[in-house]
Amino acid sequence: MPTLTFWYDFASTYSFLAAEAVDDAAAVAGVEVTWRPFLLGPIFAGQGYTTSPFNLYPAKGRHMWRDLARLAARLGYPAIVRPDPFPANGLLAARVATALADTDRPAFSRAVFRAEFVGGADIADRSVMARLLTALCHDAEAVLARAASDEVKASLRAATAAAEQRGIFGAPSFTAADGELFWGSDRLADALAFAQGQRWGLPA
Amino acid sequence: MPTLTFWYDFASTYSFLAAEAVDDAAAVAGVEVTWRPFLLGPIFAGQGYTTSPFNLYPAKGRHMWRDLARLAARLGYPAIVRPDPFPANGLLAARVATALADTDRPAFSRAVFRAEFVGGADIADRSVMARLLTALCHDAEAVLARAASDEVKASLRAATAAAEQRGIFGAPSFTAADGELFWGSDRLADALAFAQGQRWGLPA
Repeated sequence: MPTLTFWYDFASTYSFLAAEAVDDAAAVAGVEVTWRPFLLGPIFAGQGYTTSPFNLYPAKGRHMWRDLARLAARLGYPAIVRPDPFPANGLLAARVATALADTDRPAFSRAVFRAEFVGGADIADRSVMARLLTALCHDAEAVLARAASDEVKASLRAATAAAEQRGIFGAPSFTAADGELFWGSDRLADALAFAQGQRWGLPA
Repeated sequence: MPTLTFWYDFASTYSFLAAEAVDDAAAVAGVEVTWRPFLLGPIFAGQGYTTSPFNLYPAKGRHMWRDLARLAARLGYPAIVRPDPFPANGLLAARVATALADTDRPAFSRAVFRAEFVGGADIADRSVMARLLTALCHDAEAVLARAASDEVKASLRAATAAAEQRGIFGAPSFTAADGELFWGSDRLADALAFAQGQRWGLPA
C-alpha cells in the first residue's frame, strides 16, 4: 500500500484543516497515512522567527484568520475560535499524541484540534488533555504519565529533528516514501497522488 | 456582472500560474476580471524583507521551486525556468503593463510571465519588452516611451499603495468588489465564488 507521512503541529491552524481531511482522502486514494506530530517552534526559531509569522506580519495574519473562517464555512465546520494566546503552546498535546499508540493518535489529534479551534480550549492545560483522553476511553493519568517520560520527550525531539532534516519549514507538511515534500493543507491531494505514483510527467 | 481584481507582480512565481488560469476560470464563472500589476518589493520592504522570502528562507524556497515544477507539470505547461537573478526586476514590465490599455494588459502580462518563467528571458531588458510588444502588434517604441512617463510611474506607485491599503502582503492576490481579500493562486476558485455572491454561510 502506498504511504504518506502527515506532519502537524497542534498550534497550526492549517494543520487543523489537514487533520480533518487527511484520513478520509487517504482512504479514497488507498494510501496509508502515518500521523507525525512535531514542534514548529524550534524550526521557526531557526528561521529567526520569534513567534508565528501570522503574528509577525499583521496583514498576513488578518488574511489567514479570514481565509480559515471561509474555508471552515465552505467545509461546513462550526465557526473557528481563535486560541488565546495564539499560537497555543502545543508541547503537552504533542507529547501526549506521541505517547499514544499509532492507531490511537489520529482520533486524539483531531480531538485536540477541535477542542482548540472550535471549542476554544487551552490545549496547554493538563485537565483539557485528561478530558480528551477520557472521552476516547484512554486511561488519562497513565497516558499523561507516559507523556512526561524521558522516552516520549526524546521521541518528540527526534520527530522535530526529522522534520527539519526532511526540509520541513511549516505545517502541515506531507512527505512521500522517497522524501518528496508537500507543504500546506492545499497540497493534500497532490501529495496523495504522488504517493500513488503520479509524477505528472516531471523530469526524473 | 460580478467583478474581481487580480493583483500580480511580474517577479512572482505563483502570479505566473494565476495569470495563466484567471481569465479562463473567470469566463466560466461569469466574472469580469481587472488585471492590476503592482510592485511587491516596497510591500516586502515594509515587512522587513530584504529580498523574496523564498531566498531568505532556503527550505521554503526549495519547496516553492519543486512545488512550481509539480504544478506546471500537472497543468501540462512547459518546464519552468528559474529567472537569474531571482526575483527578477519587474519594474519595467510593470510600467509597460500599466501603460497599456486595460484590454491589452492581460495578453501582454501573460507573455511577460511566459518569457520569464518558460523562456528564461530577462524581463528587465528593454529589448525583451520591445520584442513582446511587437509580437502583440503594439508600437513598441511608443508604448515604451509612455511606460517611462511620469504619469505611468505615478499610476504604478498608486497601484502599489492601493494594494497595501487593501491589506495585500503577497502575490498573487484577488479582491472582490467589497474588498474581500484572497491570497495565492490556490484561492482563485474561492475568490471567483465570492465574487459571484457565494458566502458559504459565513457570519455577516
